[in-house]
Amino acid sequence: MGLDTSSQPLREKLYEIIFEADTPAGKGFDVILLILILLSVLIVMLETVSTIEENYMQLLLWAEWAITIFFTLEYILRIYSARNRVSYIFSFYGIVDLLSILPAYISLAFKGTHYLLTIRALRLLRVFRILKLGTYLIESQVLWAALRASRIKITVFLTTVLIIVCIMGSTMYLIEGEANENFASIPISMYWAIVTVTTVGYGDIAPVTPIGQFIAAILMILGYGVLAVPTGIVSVELAHASKEHPYTPTDCPHCTPDDHDIDAVFCKFCGTKI
Amino acid sequence: MGLDTSSQPLREKLYEIIFEADTPAGKGFDVILLILILLSVLIVMLETVSTIEENYMQLLLWAEWAITIFFTLEYILRIYSARNRVSYIFSFYGIVDLLSILPAYISLAFKGTHYLLTIRALRLLRVFRILKLGTYLIESQVLWAALRASRIKITVFLTTVLIIVCIMGSTMYLIEGEANENFASIPISMYWAIVTVTTVGYGDIAPVTPIGQFIAAILMILGYGVLAVPTGIVSVELAHASKEHPYTPTDCPHCTPDDHDIDAVFCKFCGTKI
Amino acid sequence: MGLDTSSQPLREKLYEIIFEADTPAGKGFDVILLILILLSVLIVMLETVSTIEENYMQLLLWAEWAITIFFTLEYILRIYSARNRVSYIFSFYGIVDLLSILPAYISLAFKGTHYLLTIRALRLLRVFRILKLGTYLIESQVLWAALRASRIKITVFLTTVLIIVCIMGSTMYLIEGEANENFASIPISMYWAIVTVTTVGYGDIAPVTPIGQFIAAILMILGYGVLAVPTGIVSVELAHASKEHPYTPTDCPHCTPDDHDIDAVFCKFCGTKI
Amino acid sequence: MGLDTSSQPLREKLYEIIFEADTPAGKGFDVILLILILLSVLIVMLETVSTIEENYMQLLLWAEWAITIFFTLEYILRIYSARNRVSYIFSFYGIVDLLSILPAYISLAFKGTHYLLTIRALRLLRVFRILKLGTYLIESQVLWAALRASRIKITVFLTTVLIIVCIMGSTMYLIEGEANENFASIPISMYWAIVTVTTVGYGDIAPVTPIGQFIAAILMILGYGVLAVPTGIVSVELAHASKEHPYTPTDCPHCTPDDHDIDAVFCKFCGTKI
Repeated sequence: MGLDTSSQPLREKLYEIIFEADTPAGKGFDVILLILILLSVLIVMLETVSTIEENYMQLLLWAEWAITIFFTLEYILRIYSARNRVSYIFSFYGIVDLLSILPAYISLAFKGTHYLLTIRALRLLRVFRILKLGTYLIESQVLWAALRASRIKITVFLTTVLIIVCIMGSTMYLIEGEANENFASIPISMYWAIVTVTTVGYGDIAPVTPIGQFIAAILMILGYGVLAVPTGIVSVELAHASKEHPYTPTDCPHCTPDDHDIDAVFCKFCGTKI
Repeated sequence: MGLDTSSQPLREKLYEIIFEADTPAGKGFDVILLILILLSVLIVMLETVSTIEENYMQLLLWAEWAITIFFTLEYILRIYSARNRVSYIFSFYGIVDLLSILPAYISLAFKGTHYLLTIRALRLLRVFRILKLGTYLIESQVLWAALRASRIKITVFLTTVLIIVCIMGSTMYLIEGEANENFASIPISMYWAIVTVTTVGYGDIAPVTPIGQFIAAILMILGYGVLAVPTGIVSVELAHASKEHPYTPTDCPHCTPDDHDIDAVFCKFCGTKI
Repeated sequence: MGLDTSSQPLREKLYEIIFEADTPAGKGFDVILLILILLSVLIVMLETVSTIEENYMQLLLWAEWAITIFFTLEYILRIYSARNRVSYIFSFYGIVDLLSILPAYISLAFKGTHYLLTIRALRLLRVFRILKLGTYLIESQVLWAALRASRIKITVFLTTVLIIVCIMGSTMYLIEGEANENFASIPISMYWAIVTVTTVGYGDIAPVTPIGQFIAAILMILGYGVLAVPTGIVSVELAHASKEHPYTPTDCPHCTPDDHDIDAVFCKFCGTKI
Repeated sequence: MGLDTSSQPLREKLYEIIFEADTPAGKGFDVILLILILLSVLIVMLETVSTIEENYMQLLLWAEWAITIFFTLEYILRIYSARNRVSYIFSFYGIVDLLSILPAYISLAFKGTHYLLTIRALRLLRVFRILKLGTYLIESQVLWAALRASRIKITVFLTTVLIIVCIMGSTMYLIEGEANENFASIPISMYWAIVTVTTVGYGDIAPVTPIGQFIAAILMILGYGVLAVPTGIVSVELAHASKEHPYTPTDCPHCTPDDHDIDAVFCKFCGTKI
């Protein structure tokens, strides 16, 4: 890989295993981590299912703590082996790594308070680390570049949707409010308008008066057309983005670019243009 | 900015603050206005929530009137400082500005009649003024040009949808009418057809007979395909529109074009081609 | 217009008024017809609303018969003035014209049988004649050409959807059948699968078992991706079609091409290339 | 056709009839097979409708066995006449052919166990054989190539959707869990999140708390934008794929390429470039 081995061979070795994925040890570590993250998420999920929790509570607790301790050790080793420790700790993945172990320790101190479980849900963000493996990063960047290039169009679109939702929500509150107790306030009517314009349509709130149904029908057809705008935007930007980076991921499959910056143009390990 | 200061420096100064956004004072004014509009919309919304209204009625009323008086003063100053007063008053934003203060005063004279609140909902259109800030206008114009270019295709599409809805609504009324009291009349069946073809699907009205469910299934698959048409239209037109105006908003970020006409090609303040 | 006036000036005059829309009389006739069609559809719709029917039954019946007689006269005059009578009678519009008056006369003979009202719904197809006006036809043809060019891809897509629906419907019947009486048979489960895959989601039938909800979730994500295919197809074909016919409708707005064949390249009245 | 008739004329003849569709006999065989497959699927479906099963049980059973025996014979003849028997048996269609007859024979031995009916649903895959007819295969390959080219983008997209679903599901469980018994566990909340983000929206589970409704609204708008990504991907790839294979199916309609490999470039019967 042509990296100059520094004075600390252990730290360098750990860096290769933990942060990179192009050595057998590094790849193996990432696969194990991936499985543990999925397992951990699954355990948190199963703990909330009453029938499972009753029977396997002890097993789930034991497994959860085992994974938490493994992740804690991993986090300490990451800080130790990182080339730039401060930048790792305050990077996106650094914060996610910390947040994915913290709630477990906090729950020890404040046992009765189950509200702290809210933070525990953030542990699910560990799944993001899976994306670091392989050629997926470049494609993510193409997708991300396409989204970033359309951010103004998307803002205009979202503002339009919000104005439609505000006006339609208020109008429906005034029309349906008296005949239909489901349209209890403008915020709830706006919730209904979002449910309708996005074509989700739960049906928990639905118009009952003829005028209300007529306006709802107009909102649906409007939503139908509005739906076309973000799709068009993303299509155009994706066509643009894929013209600039055509089929790069398949060009050099052996060199997995797992530590590049978002705006990197050359692979920093083998020098290939990305 | 190179504008010749006219004989009325106050009026010119007010114009720069109220209508433009490229001086610190002008930008500050627009930001305050933006916050007040959002606040005002929020107050109208909260007034309809029974638990909030009971406790904070007086506060909400006071805040609403304070904002209304501010908007009234602003409206008067806009007329005073506008370069072309008549064209401002009858412009889209001029009418919206007037309509956003009128309902408050009308509600003074006709207190008991809560039906006038319907017009008050139009006050929410104030949010549109937010769009005047910054580079968003150009992107709006690209979106708007794309929609205008496809207006004939969209009309053909909407007519097709309406015919499908008419025929399907009538057919379902005849098939489901007797077995299912929800399909009470052709207008209600048409409302169901729109709910279905736009994939909203509330479920408040749903077919129960086997033939009705079969026809509903056909309508859904049809809607599936029909949904593709507006998306395709907008995608093609957006691709066309973005070829003509590629990446203009980011070219000159310092010169915010907040008072250009829709069809302007050159920035009228710094002469840059838009 | 350059048409050689034949030996029957009345018939030629009628042809211009009834079939064409580029003379003041022809345009006026088409507008009146358009209003009468909409009125007629509205009357049929209102007849099914019980509150309206009770009070205005006589008025609605009278108006319906007046329009029916007008359409009958118009149909006779169309046959009389058509350049090629046989081809008109058996053309799409000729059949629609006949079907839009027939049910009224049949309902005279078989009064008690309200099942004949089913055919009456076809009268709504009259709305199609509106499309004959102005430049909309060309755009319709572009849309139509785009759809025709993708007919094989659409068939493959629909077959895939049907196979998914068959398999998913059967699977859900086997899984949910015992726990959930809503999944009563495979046809009903297939109806549910169509409601789900098209993202309509009424909620009248919904999985209740964990395995059923898991399979339903997979079907939804699958439907999400499958939804992208027809949109992509139509977008690509529309981009192709609009490259071949760029901005033709706006090129010659004064010459309304209301009687061209689908595959016409030159306007047969003024010779302009379409 | 230019095929050298081998030493076994019967086997060669059978191959032409059963595997190909460019002789009158081969086309006829395929059409009959197609009808029988549809009939067989219909019979399995109707057997689950209680009203039909009560009256026509014997007829349905008889018809099902007749078709099963015909398919068994056909399967034996396919193995006999196949050019490469092993590759046929282990090909996708070979396995589907076997699986579509096996469940019927297994149900003989284990009569009481209705769980085996699960496998019977796979018989519906027979419908896939219809696709072998005519020019549909090439278009399928274009669609398939488009999907394969986007597999990385689709994986990134699906991972993003899953992370959103995990986090939103957990958050909603914590927020709604106490007030709303429908959000009973994280897995069920995730099921709700998928139902919402795909805009299916059954409404069997819907938020009731203001905060829950607010987060649900954000999830819907998010889903709205996320929906645009796969559509954009497929549109771009379809545009790419159709540039490489423009209008091939209509070029040589007489030579039906029903036995080509996915990556074939030349028709192996008439040598035309595909």
